[in-house]
Amino acid sequence: MGIEDLIARRERLLGPGNPLFYENPVHLVRGEGVWVFDADGRRYLDCYNNVPHVGHCHPRVVEALARQAATLNTHTRYLHETILDYGEQLTAMFDAPLSTVAFVCTGTEANELAMRMANFYTGGTGIICSNWGYHGNSAAVAQISTIFPPPEGIGKHIRMIPSPGTYRGPDGVTGAALARHYADEVKRAIDGLHADGLRLSAILVDTIFSSEGLPDVPPDFMRLAVEHVRNAGGLFIADEVQPGFGRMGNHLWGYQHYGVVPDLVTLGKPMGNGHPLAGVIARPDIMSAFRNQVMYFNTFGGNPVSCAVGKAVLDVLKDERLVDNARVVGDYVIGGLKRLQQKHDLIGDVRGRGLFFGAELVRDGKTKEPATEETKRLVNSMRERGVLLSRIGQYDNVLKMRPPMPFSRDHADLVLQTLDEALFAL
Amino acid sequence: MGIEDLIARRERLLGPGNPLFYENPVHLVRGEGVWVFDADGRRYLDCYNNVPHVGHCHPRVVEALARQAATLNTHTRYLHETILDYGEQLTAMFDAPLSTVAFVCTGTEANELAMRMANFYTGGTGIICSNWGYHGNSAAVAQISTIFPPPEGIGKHIRMIPSPGTYRGPDGVTGAALARHYADEVKRAIDGLHADGLRLSAILVDTIFSSEGLPDVPPDFMRLAVEHVRNAGGLFIADEVQPGFGRMGNHLWGYQHYGVVPDLVTLGKPMGNGHPLAGVIARPDIMSAFRNQVMYFNTFGGNPVSCAVGKAVLDVLKDERLVDNARVVGDYVIGGLKRLQQKHDLIGDVRGRGLFFGAELVRDGKTKEPATEETKRLVNSMRERGVLLSRIGQYDNVLKMRPPMPFSRDHADLVLQTLDEALFAL
Repeated sequence: MGIEDLIARRERLLGPGNPLFYENPVHLVRGEGVWVFDADGRRYLDCYNNVPHVGHCHPRVVEALARQAATLNTHTRYLHETILDYGEQLTAMFDAPLSTVAFVCTGTEANELAMRMANFYTGGTGIICSNWGYHGNSAAVAQISTIFPPPEGIGKHIRMIPSPGTYRGPDGVTGAALARHYADEVKRAIDGLHADGLRLSAILVDTIFSSEGLPDVPPDFMRLAVEHVRNAGGLFIADEVQPGFGRMGNHLWGYQHYGVVPDLVTLGKPMGNGHPLAGVIARPDIMSAFRNQVMYFNTFGGNPVSCAVGKAVLDVLKDERLVDNARVVGDYVIGGLKRLQQKHDLIGDVRGRGLFFGAELVRDGKTKEPATEETKRLVNSMRERGVLLSRIGQYDNVLKMRPPMPFSRDHADLVLQTLDEALFAL
Repeated sequence: MGIEDLIARRERLLGPGNPLFYENPVHLVRGEGVWVFDADGRRYLDCYNNVPHVGHCHPRVVEALARQAATLNTHTRYLHETILDYGEQLTAMFDAPLSTVAFVCTGTEANELAMRMANFYTGGTGIICSNWGYHGNSAAVAQISTIFPPPEGIGKHIRMIPSPGTYRGPDGVTGAALARHYADEVKRAIDGLHADGLRLSAILVDTIFSSEGLPDVPPDFMRLAVEHVRNAGGLFIADEVQPGFGRMGNHLWGYQHYGVVPDLVTLGKPMGNGHPLAGVIARPDIMSAFRNQVMYFNTFGGNPVSCAVGKAVLDVLKDERLVDNARVVGDYVIGGLKRLQQKHDLIGDVRGRGLFFGAELVRDGKTKEPATEETKRLVNSMRERGVLLSRIGQYDNVLKMRPPMPFSRDHADLVLQTLDEALFAL
């Protein structure tokens, strides 16, 4: 069936405006490791998908899924050992005092639950988030997914801060002063809530600020911001849906980069390598306070199949040393992107950590005028050249690359070389 | 590992107050068809679990899951045929004009999305729900999950109506008058919203009123209620998470019992036989209005693996004639329960449709004093006798039985005989 027919069927069945990547959409039929294949047998290097964390269709994950699905799949109101084995293995990967978990199915559900927990624990409702973030799609979470402002409007309990970054920060402000500049915004947001008679519940941020375009966050920003939040009785919720599970290379979790331990952590996308698995990691006192007050049950959350899959992902991550790989290859890519920056004026800034990297494209290195249209053309050109990636950020001018974790130097060379060619041809 | 150790590990890892069935919890390790097995090899007849809809670990479903998970698992921003094949097969099972679908992962997400769609379409926010229902666990959906009143309090946009039923309806009111009595409550709820300056968005009910205790709804109630709602510009959202996919026997969907076609339908639990799969079926104009205004994307929703699983469930349902089976065996069980009612005064009422049936236990047939404590003992006694079921309803005195769909007359005989013995021994 042709692409046009698929698109027509899709629009009839799913409605208009369903997002589809690329001017010339890709019809994928198979995946393996860092590669995906279309219906014509063409191979693409996948530099975009963080959900198949340990690689598309990893045989150990598929085997764990199939074995448990053939054995038993129920819910957490019966006893089962896999949820305990997996949960203990998972929580052991976090800093004290984070030691309890609630399993859910999606990042949206994780952020929903974390905000509900924070509200109960603090007695507040005020949430501080960034002005260009994405955290999910429920009514409550859409309020903080500021990248797609909800047409319903944003409530007074939500306060947005500018996403902190060194590249587009205020002129002449650097280092410690820049960190204070952004942290002052957090303080102002708290004061604004208080002025409106609202109590702070939490600051909730993606610890690599993915949708914001992977800014280089000024050192000390998170520490100062969380100090303000805790002084006002609020909690720090780290959204680790994108940075988590070792993608950063240096650390298992994005928050560790800042040396600040959150009160609640939300997990999603990569956790089940594509299987709908997500969770909230919580300080035990916060978990207890919530559990003692609220009858919360999630039918699919923590079922034996999901937990078997989650456990297989952790085992592969360890056995294949994928976190080390993310660090080594990530550094290698950043070096390569910086070399490309010397050759191509369009590249204004190179950023990233581990296997989450990007380049901000600008029309002028001085004015930093965003090269939004050029970025769009480049993304489409890369797709035609067999490399899948996307773009992000406030001006949609940051190349977004988050490949599966078994991404090697050879794969990096292929991306860098293809980018070089596509930039020359642009 | 002993039960006590598992419970201790569980409380440490998951926090206190996680719901666990039975005074003597069950440690399950295997499932097959309508049977589950504990760690000691003991077999239990599963009369409770509707999630493994076509049977625990159905080989065709497991095979579809394993095959697609080994081939490709991505998201809906690439083209894929399985979402179209499955979506078209699924929507064809609904009455016109219901023809579009949005796939999500849980019933909570489905109800979240349906309410957001209804709010956009109508410009209202008011939701009418029952006073003893369950629809999910997000902040917005917890507002209508009135069986567990949210400690946050319930907003003014939520209006509850008494769950309609013939057994505990007002004295002496029957037939058409009883239907009008309950429908008048809907009208009053709408008037109440208007009096508070709020506009109606929708009535949202579980079409078999599961949590309410499976009441026999007075004929014509839904038709009259939906007339009131539509006259006020509101929509009818049918929550088919529990009654759907043929469980009712006579119909594929609970709403068909009333002869009223909803504007939006929400699906969940049985849809993926345990795989986290859910969805919203919508009138195309409502879907378009939403899609044209809101950037809604669900990372796991509609992925190729979930769709392959959903399709396998529909294929098994058809090939094994499980809807017919639900009707035939359901009628047989109701007959058997009515015979038990002659022998046991404790059974005040027998209710159900297809493979969702229950018996309301009362201390006195005249006063209908709920036998809550006796019901609890009976449920635990049944577990000890090797039959898993639960209880539900406003007084927790209704036996709740929703076995997997391949439930046969032999299985029914075993439940009825065990119930007979347990009632005598109570």
